[in-house]
Amino acid sequence: MISRVAILGTGLIGSSFALALKQRATGLRIVGCDRPEVLARARAAGIIDDAESNPVEAIAGCQLILLAAPVQANLELLRTIAPHLPPDALVTDAGSTKANIAALAVELFGGDSLRRFLPGHPIAGKEVSGVEHADGNLFVGASWVFTPEQGLHALIAPEFSRGLHAEFMRLLEAIGARIVVTTPAEHDRVLAYTSHLPQLVSTALAATLLDAMQNQPGLRELSGRALREMTRLAASDPRMWSGIASQNRANLVSALFEMEHALARLRLSLGTEEFTHEFERARRFDFDSTPASEESTDPPKF
Amino acid sequence: MISRVAILGTGLIGSSFALALKQRATGLRIVGCDRPEVLARARAAGIIDDAESNPVEAIAGCQLILLAAPVQANLELLRTIAPHLPPDALVTDAGSTKANIAALAVELFGGDSLRRFLPGHPIAGKEVSGVEHADGNLFVGASWVFTPEQGLHALIAPEFSRGLHAEFMRLLEAIGARIVVTTPAEHDRVLAYTSHLPQLVSTALAATLLDAMQNQPGLRELSGRALREMTRLAASDPRMWSGIASQNRANLVSALFEMEHALARLRLSLGTEEFTHEFERARRFDFDSTPASEESTDPPKF
Repeated sequence: MISRVAILGTGLIGSSFALALKQRATGLRIVGCDRPEVLARARAAGIIDDAESNPVEAIAGCQLILLAAPVQANLELLRTIAPHLPPDALVTDAGSTKANIAALAVELFGGDSLRRFLPGHPIAGKEVSGVEHADGNLFVGASWVFTPEQGLHALIAPEFSRGLHAEFMRLLEAIGARIVVTTPAEHDRVLAYTSHLPQLVSTALAATLLDAMQNQPGLRELSGRALREMTRLAASDPRMWSGIASQNRANLVSALFEMEHALARLRLSLGTEEFTHEFERARRFDFDSTPASEESTDPPKF
Repeated sequence: MISRVAILGTGLIGSSFALALKQRATGLRIVGCDRPEVLARARAAGIIDDAESNPVEAIAGCQLILLAAPVQANLELLRTIAPHLPPDALVTDAGSTKANIAALAVELFGGDSLRRFLPGHPIAGKEVSGVEHADGNLFVGASWVFTPEQGLHALIAPEFSRGLHAEFMRLLEAIGARIVVTTPAEHDRVLAYTSHLPQLVSTALAATLLDAMQNQPGLRELSGRALREMTRLAASDPRMWSGIASQNRANLVSALFEMEHALARLRLSLGTEEFTHEFERARRFDFDSTPASEESTDPPKF
């Protein structure tokens, strides 16, 4: 029975999760763990009940522990708290890369690591960070991906379809999230294209504009919605993204290479029929119409 | 005195301009010129008063003529109608490239071409096209750029600060547009970065996703707002963009090269301090805070 939840890292995701639980679940006490000044703001805003800057102290008496720091910090947090976990606590995380932390959990907890650690990733976020932007509706309609090494089948085993794992997923459904299951490797490969590449493309576009137009007078008057929209993500937190980029390096090298080639193809075809052909082809991309597999769309039934 | 306006090309821009005039100006009769089936829809929707598929017939009796077809078609239209212009008519255009059409006007009308042809570009649009998406508010708050070869000074000459040029600009202010003046070369160089590059980046990103993830099940579940936003523009009209890309080729080759290099810098720095540095730098791009020159922001006073 989950009655006390530790959230290690009360940035945008951690504090939005806390706020969503406050708004849509009952009987939970939430302890936040972060730097003291961040915790003071989170408590003042009524987002957390208790504040504790030491992660080992923070998890005491908790049944559910969410790691919601940047991905590199999540690895360190998991290593730090592992020897001190309350006997029946379930640890999960919210990081954008899954292979490294899933491997660390096996190293720390052995073959049945899934009993102690459930690798997760809510596909939600903003270009702004911090507890000030906490949003209790952030996960409404968003996918919350879990990545047990063996895929969906591991999660529907009887030991997980009752107890803490199931209770946690009911909480996620209560805050509006849709549960999706895949493997760590598949997650990291797909997210390299659907999330990490778009972020780096936005960053590269902003860098290009900065270099070329730095002192351009009247740039705003000569820009439309397109530029604003395409560079919005460039405001994202570098500390968060350097960890993601580092941990998903191999997949991102491929994705960036392919993107560079796609730009070069357009550049070399400017003014030719091939340009129209390439443009027409890209226009067919529509991820809304991509058929979803049964494994990815049907949430496990608890 | 403008009482009859011809709009050659009643796609998104042309029909939105017509609709805006209907909603915010009085005493104007609008003749549309396009393919007969397009004109039938525009007339049925109450967007135009008269329909005429022959441009030479369409401009008869008009004081203001807007070329609102794709940029290559605008060049052909200008050449076609030039010998048939009513004596005091002012021709203007709405194309996204300005150097070519400004040069053509000089070829057709000689040194005082500005009296007959005012090169223009409303910085407004959508990823969808056609009269079905006409929006009378499309130009509210948008810049409407004019590019006389000599810049602002040419436009504030007495011959233009009275008469048709001034009356046209008052109409634009009535439909909510903000008038901006620069030169054709400067327009094309800046727009290569602020508009044409973002479009091609979105197209290249969609192509990359299509190639890498074509048969990926569950792609939608593993995508967030970022991908949707960054690929929205990829749905734009290839016919319109092949003309723009072709006419602004030299500037776009530079912009695309620089974007490819920015991506390569990120790729080569994944997992290093340099990545964070590059990310931090790009984050400083904020076109809202770019100081605007007097020339670009102060509309000519009429």
